[in-house]
Parts: sequence; C-alpha cells; structure tokens
Amino acid sequence: MNLGKVTGTLVASRKEPLLEGLPMLVVRQLDETGEPSGGYVVAVDSVGAGVGEVVLYASGSSARQTAVTRDKPCDAVIMAIVDQWDVDGETVFEK
Amino acid sequence: MNLGKVTGTLVASRKEPLLEGLPMLVVRQLDETGEPSGGYVVAVDSVGAGVGEVVLYASGSSARQTAVTRDKPCDAVIMAIVDQWDVDGETVFEK
Amino acid sequence: MNLGKVTGTLVASRKEPLLEGLPMLVVRQLDETGEPSGGYVVAVDSVGAGVGEVVLYASGSSARQTAVTRDKPCDAVIMAIVDQWDVDGETVFEK
Amino acid sequence: MNLGKVTGTLVASRKEPLLEGLPMLVVRQLDETGEPSGGYVVAVDSVGAGVGEVVLYASGSSARQTAVTRDKPCDAVIMAIVDQWDVDGETVFEK
Amino acid sequence: MNLGKVTGTLVASRKEPLLEGLPMLVVRQLDETGEPSGGYVVAVDSVGAGVGEVVLYASGSSARQTAVTRDKPCDAVIMAIVDQWDVDGETVFEK
Repeated sequence: MNLGKVTGTLVASRKEPLLEGLPMLVVRQLDETGEPSGGYVVAVDSVGAGVGEVVLYASGSSARQTAVTRDKPCDAVIMAIVDQWDVDGETVFEK
Repeated sequence: MNLGKVTGTLVASRKEPLLEGLPMLVVRQLDETGEPSGGYVVAVDSVGAGVGEVVLYASGSSARQTAVTRDKPCDAVIMAIVDQWDVDGETVFEK
Repeated sequence: MNLGKVTGTLVASRKEPLLEGLPMLVVRQLDETGEPSGGYVVAVDSVGAGVGEVVLYASGSSARQTAVTRDKPCDAVIMAIVDQWDVDGETVFEK
Repeated sequence: MNLGKVTGTLVASRKEPLLEGLPMLVVRQLDETGEPSGGYVVAVDSVGAGVGEVVLYASGSSARQTAVTRDKPCDAVIMAIVDQWDVDGETVFEK
Repeated sequence: MNLGKVTGTLVASRKEPLLEGLPMLVVRQLDETGEPSGGYVVAVDSVGAGVGEVVLYASGSSARQTAVTRDKPCDAVIMAIVDQWDVDGETVFEK
C-alpha cells in the first residue's frame, strides 16, 4: 500500500457500466516523509474519504478485494483514512 | 487508474485470435495537472473513445474486468471518458 | 500493452518444464514515437514474430491469457505484429 | 521480493473492515547493498517484525498468499525477517 | 521476463511457513546488453541456479506458476538458466 493525499475529484458520465456509482478521487502520492513524490493515481473510494485527507490506497488486483470494487475494472482503491504515521521515531503526520 | 489522452490508433492484422475485433488506441499518459507525463500505453477501448479525448484507463489484471476484455491478453483498458477533473480546488480539465 | 521491436533471441536449456518449447524473444521497448525508451523485456512469442519486427506485448497476469502461455510462469507475451500506428495524425510506423 | 527496513508504524481507525486487526508497518526499501533506494511501502506484517528490523516483503497479488492477508485489499506483505544476506561474496547484512 | 545475474544468497529463519524450504537468491538485474541496470530482486529458485549464473526470472502472479511456488507469497521466480542470448545480430552472452 502507499500513502496519498486526496486532492481532487473526477466526473465521467460515459463509462464502463460496472463503474456506475463508484466515487473516484484523485490521490497525490506521498513519500515516507509526507512530501509529494511526484505521482498520482485515480482511486475508487471505499471508506468515505474527502478532499484533503491523507489515505492509504492499494493497487493492482488487490484493489478489487473490497465490497465496492469486487470484479470491477478498478486498479486502485482507497481502503483506509490515516490518523497518524511515525517514521524513525518521529510523528510524520497526525490528523 | 490513470488519466490519458487518446492520441492515435494502431493496426495489427496478425494477432492473438482472442484480440480479434478489439479496438486498440494509443493513449498518452497525463499527470495530475493535465500535462503529458512522458509515457504511453496501448489500451483496448471499452467505451467508444475517440482520438483527442481524455480518458481514464485501468492496468494489469483489472483491465480484464470488462465485458469486451474478459479472459483476453489485455493489460490496459479505457473504461471511462472524462468530463471534468478538479485538483486543489481548480478545474484542470473540462470537456 | 506496449510497443517493442524484436531485437534478439535467447537460449535456455535448463528451465522450468512448463516453459519447454515456448519461443522466447528479446524485445526492445519503444516509446510513442517509435524510439527506444530504454528498457527491454524477454517475451514469449504467440504469433510467430521474427527479429526486426515491431510488436505489441502484454505484461503481468494478462500475459498468461493466450493458448501457449496459459498457467505458465510467463509475465510477458507478444500478442500482435504491428502493421501501422499513427499518433497526432501522423504515421509513426508502417510495416 | 525486495528487501526493506521497518522504519515506522501507521494508525488508521477508519478503514475497510477486511483490514481490521492487521498490523501495518512503514518499510523503507533497501537496495542490494543495504542502502535506502529511495522508496517505501506500507506492508501488512505476517511474521511479527518490529521497527528497525530488516525484512523481505512481497508485492502485488502474491501479498495475498499468506494466512493473514488472504482475499484482503493488501498489496504488500512482510513475509520474512532477514538474518543475513551476502552479495558478491561479502556479507551485506547480519542480524 | 527479465535477465539477471545471481549475486548472492539470503537467510531468513523467521518467515511465513509457506516459504519454508524455498531457496531464495539475490538477483542483479541486467539490461539488454548484459550490463547491470541498477535494480535487484530476491527470487525463489526453481531450477537450481547458483551464484554467478545468468538467469531469466518472472515477476508478479506469474512467479507463482511453478511447482515450487504455487499459492505461495512469492512475487519473483528464477525459471531458466540462460545459455546464450543475442541482440542486434551479436552474441551478448554465452555460458
């Protein structure tokens, strides 16, 4: 899994029927220290995350292992909202 | 999933029989701000996208989770045409 | 899927029995404009491609979705020989 | 699999129910010589690793092949604590 | 699949029970010309490769398609020992 910050939303009216109703969010990838690492991903939200929140997302086939994404053409899913993370004994992020 | 712009088409008469009839498009990858990020992918189109359109594509095994790509040797599928996306409170793209 | 040019061959007499008889080719990865992008992959050939040909290959679990690669430890397969591809209204490659 | 050093912990109270109770650790990726390679991953711990330990982790669908991660939205798992590794005839790391 | 050179060994006494008895080797990744490409992977050996040998390894779910790795948390497997490979009409490597 990787850490990211929800930075945006996306609207797509014409899409694969299996994606109907799935909330899709733009997630800016963060490095271990909480800084943007240069990439992003569009992920389905399975936990009710909002713009600005720090989240954990899973990629690949593992992204289909939630109730909302099972058997769907989804390769990234937000599966946790991060409360806190610590690295090298220091708190990098606290909600 | 990632964002891309359909930039081209591809013709391959000699191919795996399972790919027969699947439309394949060249997709230039876009970053979070809508700029080309340097990569591309050839994706099967499941939503009737055309050259010039901004799309969302899925990769890996998730690309096989649509009606047209199921059980086929396809690792990238266009599964939505993007109408709009916003990042950091600003509209990056509007169709 | 990605584009590549078959640049070489590989011989391996000691291998996983499931790979017996599968032709393996060295494929130089090409970018959207037809230039080498710096990487390569060794792929199983499912379409009778030869050295010098421009091909389309699939990666990951999707590489196992052909008659010759099913259930085999193969993570890249050539599944089409490219006749032509166009980008931004220009023909990048024509066989 | 890749080598990493456990550098931190992560707390997420709101998450996909399937992740309930799974310990998640921040793992700094190491290169072949034991130096940080610049990346990290958040992995589920299946072997009782602690902060500071050098571990081996698996990614992708293979991360779901342990007793604790089966069928869960987990794309990285720590599946071994490294005692020693040698490269080019020299011991790079010894616990 | 990709090419690599076996450069080392790894010992891990505390590990996922499913990995018990699987030989794990450190593999330095090679580019198309036989030079190190900067990366490495720890792979399960399914063919009896030794340190110093040039091998072919598969990644991802395909790494679980051998007799020794089936259903195990293994994302890289050595599935062939390379005898020879040629690129652009020249022999890059001969055992």
